[in-house]
Order: sequence, then C-alpha cells, then structure tokens
Amino acid sequence: MTQNILILPGDGIGPEIVAEATRLLNALKDRFGLAVELEEAPIGGAGYDAAGKPLPDETLALARAADAILLGAVGGPRYDQLAWELRPERGLLAIRSELALFSNLRPAILYPQLASASALKPEIVGGLDIMILRELTGGAYFGKPRGIQTREDGVREGFNTIIYSEPEIERIVRSGFEIAMKRDRRLCSVDKANVLEVSQLWREVAERVAKEYPEVALSHMYVDNAAMQLVRAPKQFDVIVTENMFGDILSDAAAMLTGSIGMLPSASLDAGGKGMYEPIHGSAPDIAGQGVANPLATLLSVAMMLRYTLNEEAQAARVEAAVGRVLDQGLRTADIWTEGCRKVGTREMGEAVVAALAD
Amino acid sequence: MTQNILILPGDGIGPEIVAEATRLLNALKDRFGLAVELEEAPIGGAGYDAAGKPLPDETLALARAADAILLGAVGGPRYDQLAWELRPERGLLAIRSELALFSNLRPAILYPQLASASALKPEIVGGLDIMILRELTGGAYFGKPRGIQTREDGVREGFNTIIYSEPEIERIVRSGFEIAMKRDRRLCSVDKANVLEVSQLWREVAERVAKEYPEVALSHMYVDNAAMQLVRAPKQFDVIVTENMFGDILSDAAAMLTGSIGMLPSASLDAGGKGMYEPIHGSAPDIAGQGVANPLATLLSVAMMLRYTLNEEAQAARVEAAVGRVLDQGLRTADIWTEGCRKVGTREMGEAVVAALAD
Ligand SMILES: [Mg+2]
Ligand SMILES: [Mg+2]
Repeated sequence: MTQNILILPGDGIGPEIVAEATRLLNALKDRFGLAVELEEAPIGGAGYDAAGKPLPDETLALARAADAILLGAVGGPRYDQLAWELRPERGLLAIRSELALFSNLRPAILYPQLASASALKPEIVGGLDIMILRELTGGAYFGKPRGIQTREDGVREGFNTIIYSEPEIERIVRSGFEIAMKRDRRLCSVDKANVLEVSQLWREVAERVAKEYPEVALSHMYVDNAAMQLVRAPKQFDVIVTENMFGDILSDAAAMLTGSIGMLPSASLDAGGKGMYEPIHGSAPDIAGQGVANPLATLLSVAMMLRYTLNEEAQAARVEAAVGRVLDQGLRTADIWTEGCRKVGTREMGEAVVAALAD
Repeated sequence: MTQNILILPGDGIGPEIVAEATRLLNALKDRFGLAVELEEAPIGGAGYDAAGKPLPDETLALARAADAILLGAVGGPRYDQLAWELRPERGLLAIRSELALFSNLRPAILYPQLASASALKPEIVGGLDIMILRELTGGAYFGKPRGIQTREDGVREGFNTIIYSEPEIERIVRSGFEIAMKRDRRLCSVDKANVLEVSQLWREVAERVAKEYPEVALSHMYVDNAAMQLVRAPKQFDVIVTENMFGDILSDAAAMLTGSIGMLPSASLDAGGKGMYEPIHGSAPDIAGQGVANPLATLLSVAMMLRYTLNEEAQAARVEAAVGRVLDQGLRTADIWTEGCRKVGTREMGEAVVAALAD
C-alpha cells in the first residue's frame, strides 16, 4: 500500500535540507521498493508569503490527509515584525495541536565518529543512544488558569498551572512503553512525585499501564536526579518518558550531551502513530541559501519516519547505516567538521548518503 | 562583636563532619581572632529522638536567636517508618520556612586538583566557579491550588500552581544582584518567559531591580537553553538566579558537572543575610560512624558562612585556601580518592585543613 508523505520545507535552510530528504526518499522508492508518494506545501514564513498565514488551510488539509509529514524548519528575521498569531512558529504549534501530536520523540545519539564534539569525555558519552519522550500538548505550557493578576492587597502575582488528566498521562506513558518495546525494553518515567500532586497521579498511571507491558522494566526518577544522571552517566538510560516542561529541559540537555545538534532528528506522534518528523536545529537564516547546512538530521528524521510511522524498520536501518558509512568516509559539513576530515556542502552530503545506501 | 553560630549535627555522618567544622571554627577563633560562640542542638532524626519531633521547639528558638546556623545532614533508615510530619526531612523544611530562608546559594566549583572526576572534559569544566541562586520557598513546590481531583465528567486530573508575587521575585532577584556584586558582576536570570506568564512577571521585575545595580550585567536565558549551556560551556556563567523548580533541576545538574558532590557547600539566606549553611550531600547512613566521610563540603560551608553572613571575607578566603593546599598535598577521602593520592579519614582531613590555615 502506497503511503503519502507531506513535505513542508519551511524557511531558512529548510528548503535546502528537505531537498536532500526528497532525494533520499526517491532513491528508496526507485532502488529499494519503498511505496510512497511525496507532496509539498508551504508552512511558517513561507505559508505567510503564500497564503497570509503560517499554517495555510490547504497545508493543514494536506497534513490531515497525509500518512506522515516531514518538516524542515520555520522562522527568520523577515517575519520577526509580524503580529504574534502570524509568526512562523505559530504554524508549527498550530499543526501540532490540530493533529494532536502529543508524543515528542527526542533521540540523543552520538555517532562514534563525532564523539570528540561532545563536552563530555568520550568514555562517558561515546555510543550514546537514548530516547527522550516528551509530552507535547499538556502541562504548564498549556494549563489554565494562567496570567498576571493584582491581588486584593494590591500586590501583583504571576501564575501558571501544571495540569494533566489521567487519559493525557496514559497515552504518553503508553507511547513510552511502545517505543521501549522497539528498543532495549527499559523505560524510566521522570517526575517530581515527592513534591507535586500532578506527578503523583503521573506515577500512579505509569504503574497501572506498566501491567500491560510485562516485558518492559519500568523505573521512576525525580527530575532533579535525572538532570544529574544525564550529566554523570547518560548511557544508563534506554527510554525516558516525562511531562512537557521537564521534557523540554531534559531533551535539550540530552541533545547537547552529543555536542552536535546538527545531527539530531525528532518526531511528534499522535495516538495512532501518525507523525511529523523534523530536525531539532532551527532554520539558521544566517547560512540559508549557501548550500552549507547539514542535512543529516533531516535524513535521520526520514529514518525515524520509516521506523515509527511507516513501519519500515529495514529501510530505517538502511538510512542510518548509510549515514554511518558517510561519516566513516570522513565527509563532514561545516558544523561538524574537524581537522583531517573533508568539508562538504548540503548537496554533496545528501548525495553521499544516497550513494551509500546498501541492500 | 561576638556572633553566635548554632551547630545542628543531625543524623548519619552529620555529627562526624560537623565535628571537623567545630574544630575549624575553634582554630579560627584561637589563632586568627574570629569572634564567634558555638552552640549545638538536635535536628532531624536526632531531634525526634531527643524531643519527639524533627525540629524541637528549643532548637527552633536557638536558631531564631543565632546569627548563623551550620547543619550536617538529616535522615536515615531508622526513621523511614515515621509518619510524614515526623520524618527528619520535615525538620529541614520547617526550619527553612520558620526562618524565611528563601535564597538558596548553590555554588558549583571544581578544584583543579579534582578535575578528572568530572564527566566533562577538563578543558570544558576545569576551574569551574559558578553560583546558582535558587528561590526556595515559592513556585510550584508550595503553590496553591494543588491536588488530585475528579472532574464532572469523571476523569481524574492532577494539578499544581507555579505562582510568584512581585515581592517574592524582587527579594530573590535582589539577592542575586548582591551576590553578583561580591563576584564577577554578571547575573543571568533563567526563566521560560516565552511561554509562562509567571516568567514574564519574573523578567519584568528583574529588569526593574537591575536599574539599582548598574555595575552588574544582567542577562536572561530560557531554562531549556540554560540546561544546554551548562552542559556545553558551564564556565560562561558567573551567577544564575532562578525560581524554585528550575533552580532545583539546574543546581543539581551544575553540581554533578563537578563530579564531586562531596565537595559542595550551600547556603539558605533570609532577607537580612542570616543563613543556614550545609553540605549538599546527604546523611550517608551506609558509612555513618566509620570516620571515612568527606568533611570538605562542610568546611567549605563554614567558608560560605564567613563570607555571606558573618562578613569575614578574609577568614573565608583563608579556609578555601587551606582546602586547596590540602588537596595539593594529595590528601583525599575515599569518595574523591584517585591513584597516587593518600587516602585519609574524616578527622585526618579536618586536622589537615586546620594545619594548613595561614595568615
Ligand atoms: Mg526546548
Ligand atoms: Mg534537588
């Protein structure tokens, strides 16, 4: 059955990097029998330019109809003066919320060839391969009541609400168990249950869902300790699942452990496994149009799409192996270049990965 | 004018490590003219044993009367079965709240002699000396409303409130500026103002207070980026000030950057600068009574007390220099021992620091 992939190039370096993803998908189609159809639509600043808003109606309709979505990046200085609701970033938030993409997969992987880029010692971080699952549509970032108000005594106070319902917790925790089943079957749920009631409910639900996954070892860790353990011994983890704000902090810290943000893909999934895939780096307007951006995070986002939405594990592994081979060959874009390696541009890197695809 | 120091040994290794602090304070008194009087009282499990509760009334009265307080550590398996309100940790929370100790100073310092203990590369972390200021009595950990409730549709939800009033923000931010004035005059305020209203008020207040401290360079950083920057380049910071939960996560991560938790002191101050000082490590019941615990975090807590409450900067520097000399001599307790160094116990380490005090 042919599956439909919607490609959203976006802004800045977005068009350049997704062009390499398109090249890769077409190669998988032509040479390795992947049954997909590709379509393209504007989002972010490009959406505003095309249709007056960052998530054009037609783009949203195509996104609803697609089986999976690949996004480049959004945003740029040209759009900084727009009203809040017209900013490129709003297009991203809107598509996540319209499609109920609540499960944010943030792998932190350090290819051994790039181990020297990390601030951590190679023996601590080399070969790192962990997955952080961040709940993306609940918690303090969306919770109500919220605001700044003046109390009766005239004192102003700011407030936000960290809130999760049982079904919201259940679906993200379940997502964690499902992903752990595809990996090393160890799931660490991160909360602050010694202090926060919302975490106590979180932990209770995690324990209940765990009964359905006897093959997965569930553990719990407080968020402050998790931040310490990520620094001390990040390889101890397999899959971490946590709420929105904790996940925001921990997934960014974990990404930085690798020292090469330009290498990291991500996914945002709905309850049925449909998802939007994107590199975690931004639109990098300063280097847009120069052909020097690193396309590997986008190509690895394609690999995640093959694994988690299209259920094409062999194709996913094929892409990841090709990236490893290209790194072995010494090819590096400017952001990951070190002495003794060959500096290449976006297109040359993308073509090298396609050339390295093997049976 | 003689100042009164209340010593609270607490539980586990607490009595052993504060014994070395007492030795140090007496040496500063006898040999270097420090005008202090020492008194001792029970807290934690020891408080429960002596008076049936973790913060005995007499201990609290002495704490109110004292100019500064030195705490060892509280807690141990003997007390794990006690009711929630009788647990040793409650004594600590009670004294902080009774004395309004809202400003938690968490230095992350890596002595060059111990740089190899860090998970980070020596060039990234060697010589680290940053100060994280965590608000300790507000935010989500204390905010109301809070709880777990069943909605009208029968669905349970857990919720907590992140809340700060303008005066609460102002006093911790002011504390940050005061400490920055004693250091490199750079203050980084960490928030999530792009998403949370409570952070928007925080940032507004920080900007207003900044006008009173023109010598201090104020910057702002989002909490997820701060977590990344602490991993990538921790030495870029001088003083960080942030709210309770963010401070909990970031201060623990920063402590772990050093790789030697047994070396790190802390302080909790009130608005007037009165404070309680304590090592960040716990009561370590597994090694209690064996004379092997590392007393250096407690001795460095004494140095903080001299600097931040007793205004004895020269005495503080004297203690810190003595600790540096003892490390230079190759003396190490078991927790920081490496090949080629001499392993010593709690008392020998304390005596060596006292012997290394110089004019
Ligand atoms: Mg983030
Ligand atoms: Mg903590």
